[in-house]
Amino acid sequence: MAVELAKRHGYAQRMRTIAPFYVMDILARAQALEAEGREVIHMEVGEADFPTPSAIVAAGQEALASGFTRYTPAAGMWELRAAIAHDYQERHGVQLAPERILVTPGASGALQLSLAVLVDPGDTVLLTDPGYPCNRHLVRLFEGQPIAVPVGADTGFQLACEHVARYATAKTVAVMVASPANPTGTVVDRDELRDVLERVRALGAWLIVDETYQRLIYEGCEATALELTDDVFIVNSFSKTFGMTGWRLGWLVAPAQFVPQVEILAQNLFLAPSTIAQHAALAAFQPEIAPILETRRQKLKARRDFLLPELRAIGFEIAGQPAGAFYLYANCRRFAEDSFAFTHEALERTGVAFTPGCDFGSYGAREHVRFSYTTGMDALHDAVSRLRSYLLR
Amino acid sequence: MAVELAKRHGYAQRMRTIAPFYVMDILARAQALEAEGREVIHMEVGEADFPTPSAIVAAGQEALASGFTRYTPAAGMWELRAAIAHDYQERHGVQLAPERILVTPGASGALQLSLAVLVDPGDTVLLTDPGYPCNRHLVRLFEGQPIAVPVGADTGFQLACEHVARYATAKTVAVMVASPANPTGTVVDRDELRDVLERVRALGAWLIVDETYQRLIYEGCEATALELTDDVFIVNSFSKTFGMTGWRLGWLVAPAQFVPQVEILAQNLFLAPSTIAQHAALAAFQPEIAPILETRRQKLKARRDFLLPELRAIGFEIAGQPAGAFYLYANCRRFAEDSFAFTHEALERTGVAFTPGCDFGSYGAREHVRFSYTTGMDALHDAVSRLRSYLLR
Repeated sequence: MAVELAKRHGYAQRMRTIAPFYVMDILARAQALEAEGREVIHMEVGEADFPTPSAIVAAGQEALASGFTRYTPAAGMWELRAAIAHDYQERHGVQLAPERILVTPGASGALQLSLAVLVDPGDTVLLTDPGYPCNRHLVRLFEGQPIAVPVGADTGFQLACEHVARYATAKTVAVMVASPANPTGTVVDRDELRDVLERVRALGAWLIVDETYQRLIYEGCEATALELTDDVFIVNSFSKTFGMTGWRLGWLVAPAQFVPQVEILAQNLFLAPSTIAQHAALAAFQPEIAPILETRRQKLKARRDFLLPELRAIGFEIAGQPAGAFYLYANCRRFAEDSFAFTHEALERTGVAFTPGCDFGSYGAREHVRFSYTTGMDALHDAVSRLRSYLLR
Repeated sequence: MAVELAKRHGYAQRMRTIAPFYVMDILARAQALEAEGREVIHMEVGEADFPTPSAIVAAGQEALASGFTRYTPAAGMWELRAAIAHDYQERHGVQLAPERILVTPGASGALQLSLAVLVDPGDTVLLTDPGYPCNRHLVRLFEGQPIAVPVGADTGFQLACEHVARYATAKTVAVMVASPANPTGTVVDRDELRDVLERVRALGAWLIVDETYQRLIYEGCEATALELTDDVFIVNSFSKTFGMTGWRLGWLVAPAQFVPQVEILAQNLFLAPSTIAQHAALAAFQPEIAPILETRRQKLKARRDFLLPELRAIGFEIAGQPAGAFYLYANCRRFAEDSFAFTHEALERTGVAFTPGCDFGSYGAREHVRFSYTTGMDALHDAVSRLRSYLLR
């Protein structure tokens, strides 16, 4: 009874396992330093410095001028769902019924939908450690049990088929993969993904592939797991590809059999995604956007190609050559025993902000930090020089 | 094992208790009729025919022109949180720390946050039947148990203190009230709310008050439960008050002790609300908006004052004079045994679309329908005349 009372005056038990983003502390401290007049270089946030392309902004402004400010259907405007389907056809040769595409408030909404429709209390979901932190928290939200699969450089920080065999339980309903991944920037191998997929399906479970960074890839081809199968949940977003973070728009591709249930969830969770953002997103598929994306991709690649060897030269260990996203996941054991304290101290001493590994799990977290190359080349040069002076003094 | 396998190939158990919006079927059929050339009068949707005021639209366009398309903090822009707090002070004399206000993707997001932070599996949440359908589904989403409290004309379709005493269990963590309410348009009595609140707090549970329609009220004063206490969760939205449905922006006021946990949830569920919508919403508190709202309120009142006696004259029974929102909840037993079939048949015969009671619960649902007065006076005259010819033929 005492326990019940304590609980009843407080918050739900699940909150004990849902952690805040530690990067927010870094960000807050960075902003405080800036308020004091310090010049901070932001390598902590997962948001590139590219604005929304002007044609997309213009489409948003036109939507407002036309009075498109009312609800759309819960799964999004049909025209946008069809445009996304068409894009899969164009870029990947994948035929997709627009019905299977649900437009959501960001990839966050798509992750929510896929887990809410799959996870019963006590069900387990396999996910990588390190990995995107919201995943395990959303599993907990629906009373599932996340199973952290420790992944290292040997598998490119990606889930491999043998991991599924080793960590799956009778209660496993879903396995989550991200490619390119946050925080490591690594891309899953296509053959490995096929094997993972087969193993997951053999378990009677479902694969959820987060392809948010799918078009930010610097070696190899853009790929989608939809090339391999229809029996997969795909999470994607306009945020990172099109510089549309603040618009909050993403999508879920669901297996056909789940579509009615996922749509009911979307009605209840969101009512609908932003109408203005949807109209703007229609312009994202216009031909003039592709060259803009290509220029940005080249810029990001150049940043990575600069930053990777420089960080290594300072003494950070980075496995392989991460092929995508805009992150480098670096081992900092040469400089500190605890990466959390290290990021805070480095910020104070150098004004360079980056993210401690504990934001992405616990496996090796105290030895790792994440650098985002989401600022311009000049700032990256400056950051490297500040870090070099501080760490190799 | 067979059961486990069956489950594992399908969706989570909770989906069996999360119903679709039946009004969507009506809407889809109405649109099909329109495609055939029929003129449909829409009294089924919970969205008024007023556009977003031009000053708010202009602020959204300015935000886009200024490149405000990146993430804001998870709880929203500080400036907007402060503006909402200031508005509570101005209109209600309530002093509120902006920290307690979290900007969300619509009232939907605020409902999610309040339930996710309170509800453990098996916990019960009291809510009215009839009531807003998402509430019970969101409770199920977090594995709580909604307890439907049948409410009728005797309590103005609102929860009364004796209901709490009668339906609360040892596992009750929250009680949900909406004022004005959907689908009934009724306002909770202030003294009754005070008693409910005291009773709920004595249980060690929390009151969640949905004030989405707070400023659409035609008799009596606008009120907020924050005038009574700080120990309450308040859900509100820019959607209905400011004609901003498609922007997807609302807010939650949380008791101070819950703020850190609710903010963590907001990070994980949403990352952030729409940046463009937030900038636009700042303009909602400009002085030129108030007269626009007042004109709209007068128009809605005139519609209600027309529709209520007309529906009664036809033979619908409507208790009292619903003082708010834009809904009339009408007993249709004189015309049909099953309101679901009735709404479908009436749509085919008259081209007037309205919502069956089953969208709002089960108590008396087969005898009730909801009419929205969200279309202009001419359309309402037309609707009444069509219904009269059909029902009194």
